[in-house]
Amino acid sequence: MIMKNKRAYLIKFYLLLFASSGFSQPGYVDPLPSWNAGTLKGNIIEFVAASITAGSPKFIPVDDRIAVFDNDGTLWPEQPVIQGLYAIAHLKEMVAADPSLMENPTVKAVFERDKEYFAEDGERKVAEIIMLTHANISEDDFDFSVKNFFNHAVYPKLDKPVTQLAYQPMVELLNYLRANNFKTYICSGGTVEFMRAVTPEMYNIPEQQVIGTSFKYKFVDDGYTNHILREPELNSLNDKEMKPVNIQLVVGKRPVFVGGNVRSGGDIAMMKFSKSNTLPSFQLLINHDDADREFAYQEPDNYSLNAAEQYNFNVVSMKNDWKKIFSFDK
Amino acid sequence: MIMKNKRAYLIKFYLLLFASSGFSQPGYVDPLPSWNAGTLKGNIIEFVAASITAGSPKFIPVDDRIAVFDNDGTLWPEQPVIQGLYAIAHLKEMVAADPSLMENPTVKAVFERDKEYFAEDGERKVAEIIMLTHANISEDDFDFSVKNFFNHAVYPKLDKPVTQLAYQPMVELLNYLRANNFKTYICSGGTVEFMRAVTPEMYNIPEQQVIGTSFKYKFVDDGYTNHILREPELNSLNDKEMKPVNIQLVVGKRPVFVGGNVRSGGDIAMMKFSKSNTLPSFQLLINHDDADREFAYQEPDNYSLNAAEQYNFNVVSMKNDWKKIFSFDK
Repeated sequence: MIMKNKRAYLIKFYLLLFASSGFSQPGYVDPLPSWNAGTLKGNIIEFVAASITAGSPKFIPVDDRIAVFDNDGTLWPEQPVIQGLYAIAHLKEMVAADPSLMENPTVKAVFERDKEYFAEDGERKVAEIIMLTHANISEDDFDFSVKNFFNHAVYPKLDKPVTQLAYQPMVELLNYLRANNFKTYICSGGTVEFMRAVTPEMYNIPEQQVIGTSFKYKFVDDGYTNHILREPELNSLNDKEMKPVNIQLVVGKRPVFVGGNVRSGGDIAMMKFSKSNTLPSFQLLINHDDADREFAYQEPDNYSLNAAEQYNFNVVSMKNDWKKIFSFDK
Repeated sequence: MIMKNKRAYLIKFYLLLFASSGFSQPGYVDPLPSWNAGTLKGNIIEFVAASITAGSPKFIPVDDRIAVFDNDGTLWPEQPVIQGLYAIAHLKEMVAADPSLMENPTVKAVFERDKEYFAEDGERKVAEIIMLTHANISEDDFDFSVKNFFNHAVYPKLDKPVTQLAYQPMVELLNYLRANNFKTYICSGGTVEFMRAVTPEMYNIPEQQVIGTSFKYKFVDDGYTNHILREPELNSLNDKEMKPVNIQLVVGKRPVFVGGNVRSGGDIAMMKFSKSNTLPSFQLLINHDDADREFAYQEPDNYSLNAAEQYNFNVVSMKNDWKKIFSFDK
């Protein structure tokens, strides 16, 4: 109860602050127009406003304004995962160039949509397809192939180019944070070089601010030319406890803002890593509950929503909190 | 001969360009005042001026202006290596807190300066000291310890605080590149978190633009608090062929500017990686030939200088090309 009272007091305090700085006056521009008014939107604006207010107990120095977001299910859809679409599209190209690849039973099963084949030992078989389509290729060639994919790929069910599928409220949030000198990062289970091909255009996040799963690389040099070879072995699988680990490696400090989503519990560790920051912090957990405009799905063990309750993360209901989901929505 | 003529032509072209943009006129501010006039300084200014000139055949888009520098021997001295000083200083603190550590023969040998002990199996024994002083500690505690070191450490022989030992000509070069929208990185054999403690203040390079040797990390979470534990095992030893590999992982593209130095051939691979850029590129190799003002030392097999000759890298003679070495030099 004490916490609740303190929070109510803070909300009043910041509403006062906004009022005096023109928050609800003519000329005030809503930084998050695709978010419905309510507690959650108020919490975000309250947090950001305090973080830039010198003298506020919740002020955050500019160098510490690190914001980190998961990608699949947090910034764009994951039913199906877009990198999986790339794997299949690229596999088609590979088979067209070398039909003997169809002798591989796993490749054959992909094209015959043989679910039974993947029922047994499925994880290893999916990994085989990922390695086949993502490794034993130079970095330059891989980049070319991925960019070509993004130029043409259309998302099933939604029937839109995948590059139009950034969640509009999240794009606004990224812009809002950057306008207040937060440095925005992606930290996703997707692989680094795959995401780098689109993060600058889709989210205005530079290639250097993408944290993800990575392959082992090898520098191959024949004395005249050289390239980075993507080896068929993972360097780091960026999920769960590896997310804070890779944030430390790349960023070197705990984020003050983390966004993730409900599906597999993959973002909880980085949210807890942020929550334990000695500075004020904000954790945003997206719940996919909008079957009409996007997809509705849950987590089998409810781990993420339970963690949100226990650690006081902010849960987004896509259905209730988002006015629109995609930029093309009415 | 054709190359030489082409180069002479380009130099003339850019001198013309500078003249018309006030290069040698009153009011022109030398961006590299600690560099002596000469071919090398001219080459640098020519490269940077062309890279920002729209329409120039040597123009470089802003997103591709990636500049990467080694640290030990390139931005500050390495006789001895400063991270080695930290290891010994920290070992002293550890022994003061727990005298039983002296029962470890390797620790004992460090304090007794027992060179004979290290003559056999030296690499393993040095690694033992590095692990002892750099691992099995949380990231927060390590950061505190390193910052404390830098607040007090004095460099032997030069008798100056280590934080004053940035090479002044290189600090000017970093500033000059950044003023022209190059993004400056460090890529060093030193460990990431050690360097991060001083790169913002010494070089104006943010923590996120430091590439180096890294330890394996583990996220340790007891449900209430959590931390990153530095495990006694290397994640990546950032030397030679691993430098281009880690540049790819962190930056995602070939640099257009690389600085390194002669000692162990450690920077040649990243220079060749840069040289093979499809964009114009510049490689700067520092030769330590100034025993009076700093140190003079060579590479046993001359590999770096041979590579510079073969691949047309720009070699800096500290003695001839640098007007001053440290900011405190007269």
